[in-house]
Formats: sequence, C-alpha cells, structure tokens
Amino acid sequence: MDIGTLFGILGCLGLVLGAIMLGGSLLGFVDVPSILIVIGGVILVTFVMFPMKTVFNSFKVGMKTLFAKTPDPTQIIRQIVDLANLARRESLVALEKASVEDEFLKKGVLLVADGTEEGLLRSILETEIAFMRQRHSYGQSIFKAMGNMSPAFGMIGTLIGLINMLGALDDPNNIGPAMAVALLTTFYGAIMANVFFLPMATKLEARSAEEALYMEIIVEGVVSILHGENPRLLQDKLEAFLNPALRAGGN
Amino acid sequence: MDIGTLFGILGCLGLVLGAIMLGGSLLGFVDVPSILIVIGGVILVTFVMFPMKTVFNSFKVGMKTLFAKTPDPTQIIRQIVDLANLARRESLVALEKASVEDEFLKKGVLLVADGTEEGLLRSILETEIAFMRQRHSYGQSIFKAMGNMSPAFGMIGTLIGLINMLGALDDPNNIGPAMAVALLTTFYGAIMANVFFLPMATKLEARSAEEALYMEIIVEGVVSILHGENPRLLQDKLEAFLNPALRAGGN
Amino acid sequence: MDIGTLFGILGCLGLVLGAIMLGGSLLGFVDVPSILIVIGGVILVTFVMFPMKTVFNSFKVGMKTLFAKTPDPTQIIRQIVDLANLARRESLVALEKASVEDEFLKKGVLLVADGTEEGLLRSILETEIAFMRQRHSYGQSIFKAMGNMSPAFGMIGTLIGLINMLGALDDPNNIGPAMAVALLTTFYGAIMANVFFLPMATKLEARSAEEALYMEIIVEGVVSILHGENPRLLQDKLEAFLNPALRAGGN
Amino acid sequence: MDIGTLFGILGCLGLVLGAIMLGGSLLGFVDVPSILIVIGGVILVTFVMFPMKTVFNSFKVGMKTLFAKTPDPTQIIRQIVDLANLARRESLVALEKASVEDEFLKKGVLLVADGTEEGLLRSILETEIAFMRQRHSYGQSIFKAMGNMSPAFGMIGTLIGLINMLGALDDPNNIGPAMAVALLTTFYGAIMANVFFLPMATKLEARSAEEALYMEIIVEGVVSILHGENPRLLQDKLEAFLNPALRAGGN
Amino acid sequence: MDIGTLFGILGCLGLVLGAIMLGGSLLGFVDVPSILIVIGGVILVTFVMFPMKTVFNSFKVGMKTLFAKTPDPTQIIRQIVDLANLARRESLVALEKASVEDEFLKKGVLLVADGTEEGLLRSILETEIAFMRQRHSYGQSIFKAMGNMSPAFGMIGTLIGLINMLGALDDPNNIGPAMAVALLTTFYGAIMANVFFLPMATKLEARSAEEALYMEIIVEGVVSILHGENPRLLQDKLEAFLNPALRAGGN
Repeated sequence: MDIGTLFGILGCLGLVLGAIMLGGSLLGFVDVPSILIVIGGVILVTFVMFPMKTVFNSFKVGMKTLFAKTPDPTQIIRQIVDLANLARRESLVALEKASVEDEFLKKGVLLVADGTEEGLLRSILETEIAFMRQRHSYGQSIFKAMGNMSPAFGMIGTLIGLINMLGALDDPNNIGPAMAVALLTTFYGAIMANVFFLPMATKLEARSAEEALYMEIIVEGVVSILHGENPRLLQDKLEAFLNPALRAGGN
Repeated sequence: MDIGTLFGILGCLGLVLGAIMLGGSLLGFVDVPSILIVIGGVILVTFVMFPMKTVFNSFKVGMKTLFAKTPDPTQIIRQIVDLANLARRESLVALEKASVEDEFLKKGVLLVADGTEEGLLRSILETEIAFMRQRHSYGQSIFKAMGNMSPAFGMIGTLIGLINMLGALDDPNNIGPAMAVALLTTFYGAIMANVFFLPMATKLEARSAEEALYMEIIVEGVVSILHGENPRLLQDKLEAFLNPALRAGGN
Repeated sequence: MDIGTLFGILGCLGLVLGAIMLGGSLLGFVDVPSILIVIGGVILVTFVMFPMKTVFNSFKVGMKTLFAKTPDPTQIIRQIVDLANLARRESLVALEKASVEDEFLKKGVLLVADGTEEGLLRSILETEIAFMRQRHSYGQSIFKAMGNMSPAFGMIGTLIGLINMLGALDDPNNIGPAMAVALLTTFYGAIMANVFFLPMATKLEARSAEEALYMEIIVEGVVSILHGENPRLLQDKLEAFLNPALRAGGN
Repeated sequence: MDIGTLFGILGCLGLVLGAIMLGGSLLGFVDVPSILIVIGGVILVTFVMFPMKTVFNSFKVGMKTLFAKTPDPTQIIRQIVDLANLARRESLVALEKASVEDEFLKKGVLLVADGTEEGLLRSILETEIAFMRQRHSYGQSIFKAMGNMSPAFGMIGTLIGLINMLGALDDPNNIGPAMAVALLTTFYGAIMANVFFLPMATKLEARSAEEALYMEIIVEGVVSILHGENPRLLQDKLEAFLNPALRAGGN
Repeated sequence: MDIGTLFGILGCLGLVLGAIMLGGSLLGFVDVPSILIVIGGVILVTFVMFPMKTVFNSFKVGMKTLFAKTPDPTQIIRQIVDLANLARRESLVALEKASVEDEFLKKGVLLVADGTEEGLLRSILETEIAFMRQRHSYGQSIFKAMGNMSPAFGMIGTLIGLINMLGALDDPNNIGPAMAVALLTTFYGAIMANVFFLPMATKLEARSAEEALYMEIIVEGVVSILHGENPRLLQDKLEAFLNPALRAGGN
C-alpha cells in the first residue's frame, strides 16, 4: 500500500471538511443531484472519449499502480544475486525450480532456464516493458482527460442552477441559498480535478518510470545470469542502476 | 454500432435534462435564437477555418468512425488463416475468387493473387494506412476546432444578451429572466464542447490507432500468404499483434 | 473567390446581427471610441510584434490566399500532359513559346526549355515552395497573434469603462447603460478573434498545404517532361498525388 | 531607430489615454501604490526567476535589439563586394587596413587577412551567430516571463483592494470608487503584458531571425573573399539570400 | 547565498504588505483556517502527485540550489590550472594529495590520480552531470506542479467560503466581511504560485544550466590534466567555455 497517495487524498479531504465545518455545516455542501451531474457526467463522457473496454482496464491498472507498494529494488537485486549463485553452483536448468515471487523476474528466469539466447531474451523482456509503459501512459491520459472534464461539468451544473434561479426570481431571500447550491457543482468539479484525477495522472507518470527502472534492472540481471557472470560483480553492476535514486536522496 | 459513444452522449444529456427539470422547467432552457447563434455560429465559422469540401467529408468520415463497430481483430486473423490455407491447398491465384468482406483485406488479397512482389505490395497497403491516418487526424482537428469555438460563440451570445439587457434597464424584475436567457448560450456552448466535440475528437484518436493496428495485422498477414508461410505459425505471429490490447485487459 | 471563407464570415456576422436586433437595437452595439480602441489597439500592437514591412506584405499575402480560388489540380495535370505531348512532338526548346498561365509552371517550363539539369531544376523549384511555405507560416503567425491580442484589448477597453463608471457612481440609473458600453469592447474583441483572425489563421494552414501539394505536382510533372516520359504514364503518375484528397472525398 | 516598435507602443498608449479621457478623467487612472505593486512586483519577481546579472544584460540586449535600426542587407552586400574587389586588386592582407563599420564583418575580414583557413573561419563566425541567438532567446524568455507575471500581479493587487474594501463596508457610497481603484492594478497588468512585454518578446524573435540572416550573409561573403571568388558572381550569390524577404515583398 | 532569489521574494512580500497596510489593516489578511487549507492542501496534494521520498529530497535539492551561491567558474579554472602545474612538476599521482574543495573536481582528480583512462573518466563524470540534471529537472517539475495547484486550492477555499456565506444570508451587513474572508484563499494561492513556486521553478532551470556548464569545464579540465596538456593552453581552452556568459555581459 502506497501511503503517500492515500495520505495525501485523505489529508486534502480532511482539510476541506474542516474548512467547511468551521464556517458552516457540512449539510450545505451535500446535494445529491449536484453530485450526480458532476460525477455521473464525468464518468459518462469518459465513455464518449475512450473505447469502453479500455476505460475499465486502464482504470483498474491505474488504481493498482497508484495504491500498490513501490517495489524495493534492493530486495530484487539480492534475489537476482541469489539466483546467480544458484546457477553457478548447480546449472542454468536448476533455475527452473527456484521459487521467484516477482512475475517479471520469474518469466526472465524461466527463459534463461530454457536456454533462450540473449537477443531473443532481451527482445521478449523489453517488449514487456514497452507494453507496461503503453498501458500506464494510456491510463494516465484517461485520468488527465477526466481531470479536464471535471471543472467543465462543474460549470455546466452551475450554469443550470444559475439559469433556473434567475428564470424564477420571486423571493429575493431565496437567491443566496440557490446560488450556494448552484456553486456546489463547481466545487465538486474542482475537488475531483485537483485532489483526484490530475494528481493521480501525475503520480502514474512517476510510478511508470520507477517500475520501468525496476524492470530494466531485472533484464540486466537475467542476462548476466545467462552469461554466468560473477555474482559479486553482478551486484555492483545492478546497484549502479540505483544511483539516481540513492544520490537524489544523499544530495 | 459503438455503444460507448452513444451511451455516453445520451447519458450525459439525460443527466443534464434531469438536473434541469429537478430545479425548474425545461422550457426555461429552450431559446431558439440562442440555439441558432451558438450552433449556427460554430458551423459557419468551421467554413472559415477549413476548406468547404473537406469539412463535409471529414465530418462524414468522423461520424462513421465514431459510431462504427470496432473491427474484431480475432475474426480477421481467423479469416487470414483461412485464406492462407486456401492458398496452400490450391494456389495464390485461387485467392482471387475467395469471398472477403473487409475491403482492405480484399485489396491485399487481390494484389497477392495478381502476383505483386512484396516491396510493392507493402508500399501500396502502407500508403492506404497513411491516408487513413491523415483523414482521421484531419477530422480530429476539425472536431477539436469546433470544440474550441463552441464556448467562444456561447460567450458572444451571452455578451449580446447582457449588453441588450444592461442597455435597457427599465424594470428591475426583468433582470433575472433576461440574464437567464443571456446565460443560455454559454450553457449551450459548454454542452457542445464538452459532451460532443472535444470527447469525440479524443475518441477519434483512439479509433484511428485501433484501425491502424487492425490494418497492420492485415498487411503482415497478406505478406505471409504471399510467402506461403505455415498457416499455424501465421496465426501465432498475427496474434502477437493483439498482445497489447489483451494484456491491457488481463492485467 | 473562395466561397467558404466569405460565406462563413458573412453568415456569422448575420447571425450576430440577428441576435442583436431580436433583443434590442443595433444602435446599442455601436460605439465609435470602443471600436477604435479594440481595432486600433490590435493593429498598433501588431507593429510592436512584427517588423512593419513584413506586416503589410504578410497581410496582403494572407488575404490573397484566403479569398483566392483554390487551384484545380486536375486542370494543371491536363496542362502538364499537353506540354509533355508538345515537347515530344517538337522539342524541349519548343516549350519556350507555349503559353502557360500558372507562374510557377511557367518558371519550371522555361527552365526545362533552357536545358537545366534535373538536380538544379528541382533545387530551384523546391526553394520556391519552401519560400511560399515560409511566407504563409509567417502570415499565419501574424493572424494568430492578432487573434490572441483581440480579447486582450477588448478586456483593456472594458476595464477602462468599468473604472470610469465605478469612479463616478452618481446616478444608479446610469450603471446599466455604462456597463453595457464597457462590455462592448469585450464583445468586439471576441468577434474579431473568433470570427476573423483565429479562423483565418487555421484556414491559412490548410491552404498552404493545398498549394504546396499543387506545386509538388508541377515539380514532378516538369521533371518528367525533362526526361521525356510517356505523357500517358505521366498523367497516371501525377494523379497519384491527388489520391489523398479524392479518397478523402470518396470515403 | 525602429519606427514600428515605438510607433506601435505610443499609438496604443495614445488610444488608451483617449479612451480614458473620453469617459472620465485621467486622474482616476493614476494610483501610485497600485503602480508600485504591479511594476515593482513584476521587476522583483524577475530576480526570483532569473539570475540577477543575466536579467540586466538580457534586458539591455533586448532593448537595443528592439529599438535598433534593422541592418540593411543590401548595403552590407555592397560593402562585401567592395572588399572582394580590394582583395583581388591588392591582396588579402590589404583587407587589414580597410575601414569596416559593422563589427561582425570586421572580425571576419581581419580573420581572412590573418590567413585563417575556411574551416576555422566558419567555426569562429558560426559560434558568434549561435551566441547571438542564445542571448536573444534568453532575453525573449525574460520578456515572456514578465508578460506572464504582469496580469498575475495585477490580480494580486486587485484582490488586496477587494479584500480591503469588503472587509470595511461602512459607507455604500464608497464601494464604487474603492472597486475602481482595486481594478486599476488589473488594468496596469493588462497594459504591461499586452502593450509591452508580450509584443516585445514576439518582435525579439523576428529580429533575431533577421540578424541571423544578416550574419549568415556576412559569413558566406567573407568565405568567398578568402577563396578569391569573382566579385560579380559573389553579388549574385549573396543576393540569393535576400530572396525570401524580397519575394515576400513582391508577392 | 544567492541575493537575487531572496531579495526578489522579500521585495515582493514587502510590496504586498505595503499595499495591504495602505488600504486597510494587516489583520484583515490573516485567517488561519484559510492559510491551512491553501498551504496544507498544496503540500498534501504534492504527496498524491509525487512519490513521498522524492518530494522531500527534490525539495531539499531545489532549496539548496535556489539559495546556494552561484559557483564562480573563473576560480575553478584557476584551480584546475594549478592542479595541471602540479601534475606536470611532480606526477599525476601527486594529485591524490592536493586539497580540492569542490567535490566534483575532487572526484575527477582522484580518478586521474588512479590512472583511469579517458573513456571511462569521461563516462563516469558525464553520468554525474546527467544525474544532476535529472534531479534538478525533477525538482523543477515538483515546483511547477505546486505552482499550478496553488490557485486551484485557493479557488476551492474561496468556493467553500462563498457557499457557506450564500447558504446563510441572514444579516446583509455580514456579506462584505464574509466575502473578504472567502477571497483570502484566492489571494494566498496567487501569492504562493506567482511569488514562490513558479518563479523558483524558472530559476531552477537557469541554475541547472549554469551548474552543468561549470561541471563541463571541470570534465574538460580533468581530461586535459590526464593528457598532460600545457597549463597555459589549458587556461585558454577552458576560458572559451566562459564566452557565452561573458559576452552576454559585454554586449
């Protein structure tokens, strides 16, 4: 579970709730038809923008990515080094029976155990990375589009409220509350765009880069196992990949 | 018929109608001159932006693409494999009489039956794909331009209404309804942009990519038939093209 | 005369006039100082943005392009084929006396009659196309800049009106008409940007592409004449250039 | 002195002043604190955005470029031809004593007189052009950033005015003038962005292209002098560079 | 300490404070809940947008870069020349004991003393530069995202205030102050975006370029020391790197 995403969203919602209750009551901010038109409108228009099946899948992929725990590259490097030791002690074929949790590493190890030559091995694994990137980038474009549509539907809802109110101006005492309700959809749209969809689209990008780095380490490691490289040198080589992150931390 | 586009548009319109009727009457949202200036203005300005003939064609192409059923790549692969079997059992010339529904596949098959060599075959079919892409991208830019012009003409209409109202402020009771009518064009512009033109432009892009993938499969399949490749291997080879979509689904 | 541009602009203006007169009188929308500040401001700021001489030329070029009749590529192909026949019957030198209306074709034909070799011929004509593109793209950027400046000067005018009005709030009955006048500049700016400058910039792009295609056909035709290619084959070859447009039409 | 920039700016300011005085008095548009917050804020934030020394230099370079007279390429070509004649009559070394006003041409001529070989000559002069472009592009990005910050500080000023006014609503007669003053900063920001910074950034781009062309002509001319090319042919060759501009004029 | 960044920010804040106090009291601009929702919201949403650890690091890196003193390239060149002299007089190994303050130069010098060959030396140092650029560009994108989110959360806060106020319109005397408070969040958001985050993102870019240039000089210098180049020529060679900056100053 990624704490950042959840913590950020819940924190923002908490702040908003606090600000609401400090100046009035939460009841004044709940209006079911307003919620329906903004949330419903954004979801429905997403089906106009993207092919149906893709929307569901990309959404699922996006959610999993956002809330999944970031893979720990140090751990995967240790595991690769263990596998390299195993392959040296016994043989490449022995890798077949090693228990490997990470699916991508497992795929690579099985290919090595099958005696796949380097060119094909790399091409198969790199294709997998490319597909992962494409899925994420598609999911990101869906989140971004929903983030852009949220304020638009907020405005449509507010226009409906304003026009209804202005068209029937009987009781001047009614103007205030009617405008308050009309503004609710703009408020919902702003929250949806700026707390959910747009920030998630941004994180999806960072996550995609992280996961690609993680997979690149696995590719390099698996190829090194195939070549029977020295496990110690292998560790050094793979940790070089970590430098950007580590140095970013240490600097 | 693509259900997503239609379902999304009708759903959005339904939500909007519901929101309108919950807070007032639908009559207050219908104003023929306002409709004329926004819809008419956007259509007329499209003729200033794009050459006339192209507007009609691209619009037609766009509509067909948006509401057409997505081609099923599994089916086309099966058909290509059948054709490959036919070519192996009889001869390439026998393909000429095979009944092929898809126009692009038919063109490819006829070229093979005519004994066209690979280079020319590929070049002819790839040109077709390039033209398809260009048509779609042109149609997309028209939809996008109309989506950008809709709020602009909505604002022009609202400005006309406001200036007229402010210039003749006799009866203060009249301000509300007059402003309601003035806001209608902004409302129409927002609906046109965010429910129709902009989402359609987005889908056109996804559709174009889908159709291009579909056509690429056909090109690869037709070339394989020309080379008399093993139909079984051919199936595997073509299904590799499907992976991105399938994996996006299975992940 | 290109009907689309004129028809679109006049239609939009007609719609706007209709909407104005339906809800008030045209007189309320005419204010000479407001017109001066928006139109004058946009023209003057264009001289700050672009070198003076270039503004005049590009504007002239732009106008000619927008309202000029689209060249008919079928006709030019027929003419090229006629010239190819002439060159075959008599000689390349005979081309010198042929009457050719299109200036670019004439230039190419004279170069062929002078015995220019293919490399130089192509380079001279392609340079001409590049210059044409550059002129159009420059003209387009001027129209776009004017389109972006129009709402800005509209807003400046409205701010002047509002500040003047607010600074001297004596008679509350005066507020309405004064605000109406203040909004006029915003209205003028919106019309200028969305009916004139921005749509024209968009069309200039389409026109530039059309004209470039037309000139490319001429280059290919002239080179073929130089090589004495078969006029029939030449016709086929040049009509291949038309395909994108024709297919866009037929699809 | 470039008349366009000055004429455009003064013209715009004249129009604005006229519009102000037509509807009220100029005094209502002068508010020293408002001027301070917008102009001061934009200047100060520029030091947050760009390194201090660079701001001063780029500003100076920008101003010089904007108001400098456009160099006349015809004149420089004549001068280069004269130098070519001199070099032919006497020798390359004689160039050393020729009086050359343009600094860039002088540098090139001295390098030729020193017997610098073509490769090095070109590399030195092209580096100079690259530096000039970089300086201009940096200056342009400073003007653009100031143009984007001007409306932002205008809005900040207006928000301060509005909040102050709303927080102390005693005398309703005071609302109008207070809002007028609050809007002044928005007005100043709009003028600064749309009359000064953004148009100047646009012109800097055009000027940079003009000056680069001018310098390219000099590079070509100096290299030709080094090779002892025929002065007549040299004139033809250099005037080919002018074509875009001349044709843009003649078309 | 970079004076520009600090001077600009403090100056802007001073101007804003002055403008506030000129027209009212500072107390009217301080509202703790409003501050909490804008600042808190922007910080929390940053954790939704970027991985947690990266936020902290990039922020730290960004701050250090913004307020750090710009390295003086003239000084580093002098130091490199001294090291080159030392290496010539004694030997490359003697470099090991030289006291070098700059960490990047130290790393390079130690590699030279270890006898690293040019290819590897360059690759190690260039990788370091690439990592530095990446860190800065990541930090910049965080600042930019926070700058874009600030007005969004300002608007969310204002919407909450407006809806609360409109929903409970009892005492008309209360409207003014309530709106004043509602506008405060918009004001805070505008200050945060336009005085802090966006200008800092811009400066981070300039700083990154400066630091990269500085490091490039070191790489070139260290490689020259490895080759035992003449220290005098080395000085000339390295000062050529300074030209863009110096000329930008001198022009």
